[in-house]
Amino acid sequence: MNEVINTINSRVSLRRYDSCEISNDDLEKIIESAIKAPTAGNMMMYSILKITDEKIKETLSETCDNQPFIKNAKVILIFLADLQKWYDYFEVCEVENIKAPGMNDFMLGIDDAIIACQNAVVAAESLGIGSCYIGDIMENYEKHKELLNLPDYTFPAAMITLGYYPKDMNKIYRERFDKQYVVFENTYKKLDEDELKNMFKHKEEDMPKTNPYGAKNFGELIYNRKTNADFSFEMDRSIKEWIKQFTK
Amino acid sequence: MNEVINTINSRVSLRRYDSCEISNDDLEKIIESAIKAPTAGNMMMYSILKITDEKIKETLSETCDNQPFIKNAKVILIFLADLQKWYDYFEVCEVENIKAPGMNDFMLGIDDAIIACQNAVVAAESLGIGSCYIGDIMENYEKHKELLNLPDYTFPAAMITLGYYPKDMNKIYRERFDKQYVVFENTYKKLDEDELKNMFKHKEEDMPKTNPYGAKNFGELIYNRKTNADFSFEMDRSIKEWIKQFTK
Repeated sequence: MNEVINTINSRVSLRRYDSCEISNDDLEKIIESAIKAPTAGNMMMYSILKITDEKIKETLSETCDNQPFIKNAKVILIFLADLQKWYDYFEVCEVENIKAPGMNDFMLGIDDAIIACQNAVVAAESLGIGSCYIGDIMENYEKHKELLNLPDYTFPAAMITLGYYPKDMNKIYRERFDKQYVVFENTYKKLDEDELKNMFKHKEEDMPKTNPYGAKNFGELIYNRKTNADFSFEMDRSIKEWIKQFTK
Repeated sequence: MNEVINTINSRVSLRRYDSCEISNDDLEKIIESAIKAPTAGNMMMYSILKITDEKIKETLSETCDNQPFIKNAKVILIFLADLQKWYDYFEVCEVENIKAPGMNDFMLGIDDAIIACQNAVVAAESLGIGSCYIGDIMENYEKHKELLNLPDYTFPAAMITLGYYPKDMNKIYRERFDKQYVVFENTYKKLDEDELKNMFKHKEEDMPKTNPYGAKNFGELIYNRKTNADFSFEMDRSIKEWIKQFTK
């Protein structure tokens, strides 16, 4: 295994950070790596917010599904799909009848943003800096738009917390589904009941005996904890609001 | 610069490949690296299609905005947002009144898929295997759904072509926008006219003297070539169809 693949494979989501600040040099390398990421048509339809302000970190801790560890991150990076700059540039160029961004622009901006973000994650990891993705940044449309001063043609596609691994860190790797249920050759293969049961077998076995939902199996547990949870409904609502504004 | 950051920084989009096939060992490492990627709630809301069939490659060359180089890729990987497996598993678990996926599921699936895809890209690069993202896989909803046998709760979030760098390769790095226009501290900063003109200055300077659109500046050129082009309208239409079906 080369150093790159080794770095990718040894990453875990990090929610507890060493007390020392991220050096400017390391942060610069992380951001440079993000900017070097592939981008559709070299258009870079994204922006990066580097969050260092303690008050904003604290607010994000609350608005992103109340996760206190977020404010303890040394730096937070938010990757925005950003068509605002292009729209404004078209205006400066006096393009006639400029249309508002469509779902194509929205999605290509998200692609660009997340691709750049994952480059940042891998680069950070190689410098001993751990990270955690926070999908909840897509919730609370109104609050996040105001907090971060986001114009209409932007969307917070990804957010990561960053900090050095603590010295006493004992990495725990979470098991992934077996490849046979994730990778298909040439065309999609719909899994039958037996395959699904096998796919989730280790999850069923590791499931705690009791749970707050009274779920009798792992499917019920996840459905209640994730799919049907309040934050999921909020995220659904919020994303629809972002899209409405982005493509209006 | 460590090897990881060096690999990230030395990547270019590769559209011409060495004649030798990708070894099973290397392909395995690429896919393992994808599967190790961060994923929301460890749910892995994605699937990977490994396209090796020559007929499918040829069709994709046509349906993805007629780009002949696509069929010459040694392997194509398509990363699907995939909530189908979870929906089917909830059924197997006899969850009551299962709701169809929402925009939250759609977007988290896309996040998962693209994060995994970029891990694959970086891992491939470290093995001397170049790649190119093809956003056009989001076009032609009806054709791609049938070609790849995609069930309702899936969406092709990303597609990459793969092949070893040719031995005579002379890498050309495409200039990125200056960091000051991409990275903002704490809150978004809307760029004014002067800033936008500076941001795009090198693009204006490098613009060819003539172009098929009669565009008088770079903004008009890109607006005609990308934003207002046929493939953009098709992508907009197609994504809306995917979403309609995904969240129905």
